[in-house]
Amino acid sequence: MKLSLDKLSTTELADMLAGLEREYGHVSANRMALDLSRGKPAADQLDLSQDMELAIGGDYRTADGTDARNYGGPRGIREARELGAELLGVPVDAVLAGGNSSLALMHLVVETALETGLWGDARHWRRHTPVKLLAPVPGYDRHFVLSESLGIELINVPMQDHGPDLDAARALITNDPNVKGMWCVPKYSNPTGCTYSNESVAGIAGLANDAAADDFVVLWDNAYTVHDIYAPGDTLASLYDLAKPAGTSDHVVQFASTSKITHAGAGVAFLAASPVVLESLERRLSVMTIGPDKVNQLRHARFLKNRLAEHMQAHAALLKPKFDLVLSTLEAELGGLGIAQWSKPRGGYFVSLDLQPGLARAVVDMAQQVGLTLTPAGATFPYGRDPQDRNVRIAPTYANVEDLKVAMQLLTLCVKLATVRQRLNQT
Amino acid sequence: MKLSLDKLSTTELADMLAGLEREYGHVSANRMALDLSRGKPAADQLDLSQDMELAIGGDYRTADGTDARNYGGPRGIREARELGAELLGVPVDAVLAGGNSSLALMHLVVETALETGLWGDARHWRRHTPVKLLAPVPGYDRHFVLSESLGIELINVPMQDHGPDLDAARALITNDPNVKGMWCVPKYSNPTGCTYSNESVAGIAGLANDAAADDFVVLWDNAYTVHDIYAPGDTLASLYDLAKPAGTSDHVVQFASTSKITHAGAGVAFLAASPVVLESLERRLSVMTIGPDKVNQLRHARFLKNRLAEHMQAHAALLKPKFDLVLSTLEAELGGLGIAQWSKPRGGYFVSLDLQPGLARAVVDMAQQVGLTLTPAGATFPYGRDPQDRNVRIAPTYANVEDLKVAMQLLTLCVKLATVRQRLNQT
Repeated sequence: MKLSLDKLSTTELADMLAGLEREYGHVSANRMALDLSRGKPAADQLDLSQDMELAIGGDYRTADGTDARNYGGPRGIREARELGAELLGVPVDAVLAGGNSSLALMHLVVETALETGLWGDARHWRRHTPVKLLAPVPGYDRHFVLSESLGIELINVPMQDHGPDLDAARALITNDPNVKGMWCVPKYSNPTGCTYSNESVAGIAGLANDAAADDFVVLWDNAYTVHDIYAPGDTLASLYDLAKPAGTSDHVVQFASTSKITHAGAGVAFLAASPVVLESLERRLSVMTIGPDKVNQLRHARFLKNRLAEHMQAHAALLKPKFDLVLSTLEAELGGLGIAQWSKPRGGYFVSLDLQPGLARAVVDMAQQVGLTLTPAGATFPYGRDPQDRNVRIAPTYANVEDLKVAMQLLTLCVKLATVRQRLNQT
Repeated sequence: MKLSLDKLSTTELADMLAGLEREYGHVSANRMALDLSRGKPAADQLDLSQDMELAIGGDYRTADGTDARNYGGPRGIREARELGAELLGVPVDAVLAGGNSSLALMHLVVETALETGLWGDARHWRRHTPVKLLAPVPGYDRHFVLSESLGIELINVPMQDHGPDLDAARALITNDPNVKGMWCVPKYSNPTGCTYSNESVAGIAGLANDAAADDFVVLWDNAYTVHDIYAPGDTLASLYDLAKPAGTSDHVVQFASTSKITHAGAGVAFLAASPVVLESLERRLSVMTIGPDKVNQLRHARFLKNRLAEHMQAHAALLKPKFDLVLSTLEAELGGLGIAQWSKPRGGYFVSLDLQPGLARAVVDMAQQVGLTLTPAGATFPYGRDPQDRNVRIAPTYANVEDLKVAMQLLTLCVKLATVRQRLNQT
């Protein structure tokens, strides 16, 4: 199997195709129900936070004497903001602790930037239409859908091994004041798993200076900041620290959450920003709500206090066998064939698989027909359009190891089948 | 004291003024720190839900097998939606269970109505500008501030003893397609405490038929639906039932929450609407969040199951002495003087006090100077403008009984002092 497909004659390819089709026919007759589409923690990961329910223990007072059960406090309780500061590596005063959804905080920031601006002055994105944001691709579909729903145009910027292509980004922002910012998942990026290099983070810290727009914002979704799987994990430079000397602190908003630390749907989300930006956000937030769920904040802060690293190691112990399996199956089944590349992340929730151009949709459909659900082809690109139709996102966390094993066999079978068919059609 | 001020001579008024000023001078020298401004439950009320922390008990599965800890389910879990259905008196399929804030759900509804519409068609409020909403006054300041922040113009409609003045409302909506809806707090209204009569609810169910706008919406904030204090509590007709024969079910959105049932800042909020409206809201919500906190929903549903009425009676037992005290002090100190009217609610969180025109701001300032914080004068009106400057909202729940007693003495003293001063200036 280690011979590159390029080296095979048409007859050899035809033989191979026949074997793959037999195999596919066999699995077709024994349809499974498998799912590698969702970046969700598995039940055993959620069980790691089983004791969180006991963290309140009848004592609802925060350290400063606030009754967490009552109304008020749009920035969240201090204990929770300290947890956010730990996750994001910023001072506690820069942190707002919110509800259960970092996506909701991103929506708040983007909508505020659009409508009233983040700086308490006349600058707001809707002054210039169409409003555009840069989208490193492949990337996180919910960033794209959120932006699109607010009428924002997305422009692809290629993801490289150590961050977005900043030359491409600069070329797009230096002359166009309508480009208002860039989405980033800087550590264990969704889906490539790459972590931005120090040079990349420094470059991104300076983007607001390069931009024609005076209201450029880096949207820094640090969703996987403590989510190492292999030791040692990647190290991410501090955007907060690098933005200071660049003078761009007002043009950087960071996000994190405990969604993949404690309970995926019932965690605490955080954002970090400069004082003027926090004030603008708090002003808007105060109109919409009487404050976040401080009881859940307190529960989280107490549960994770002085045990975050240990807790994340327990997650890693559960996730490592799954990532090992994905990577070893890809290597065993596709390695050396010269038909696919895939990322080898040291943490996060995804493996990104790049096929021969024109094959992603076919492979996803082919897998679906035998009962394996994958993330829809194109989902990792704005508007669901992968220009080369080649990227497949693998989400190995939610399935159990046995299902994952079968799923990866199916997936690699579909990749080989589709690729050999394509070759034969081309010859 | 039972002689109406009208019957007093100037000399008698001057004597009275001297006495009141001495009294005020005395309390001025012993400045307190009292607060009747906030509609917050007191700590003993929050303690009633102390056992809610134990309601999960390590079992995160909902009745239909959903793992409440994981992502997903924008409408909330069925158990929580059943609780919302119980609160709102509607079928469970009409209910969406959200996060901790009904205000956030109201923001969602108003913003959706403005930008994309609630009906999956071309109708959305921004087609006609300025967008206007009717505001029964006095009313709930956060409804007004939310509307204003979205650029909506508010038009006062007088509150009467059994609901808003619907003749006035109809006169405003029949010829103006820019009037898009009306805010309502139909039971134990904030701040008057009145409950809308059956006739009023029936009239409101028909408003969308009377309106020139084809996208008229009744925003029905049933915040105090089970919040009786005196038995028997008021009975509110079902807007859901009355909207059906009127054919206006698509033009009614109802809200409730457990904020003043369990934990004020950490409860569960609900909305009820027709299928097409729920779909529109879910579509928008799905872009902004991966779902509500289902663990907190499950905790609430289990804790309140089959014990809601009993639980609310326990609240009533704590609140009744406070409302008794407020009402008896008002009667003892102001009764018969002919200088003020106040509401005598059978539930809810507020007593509404109407002074002689032109005195509300003076009384609130006077009280503040001796350490009693009241809701800012005008807060119960859009733009903070009470056209007659006469309404003062009393929020008796948060203070303890001892403080409340002192606070009510101070308040009634300030009312008398300001009123006598006004009379003497007028003579």
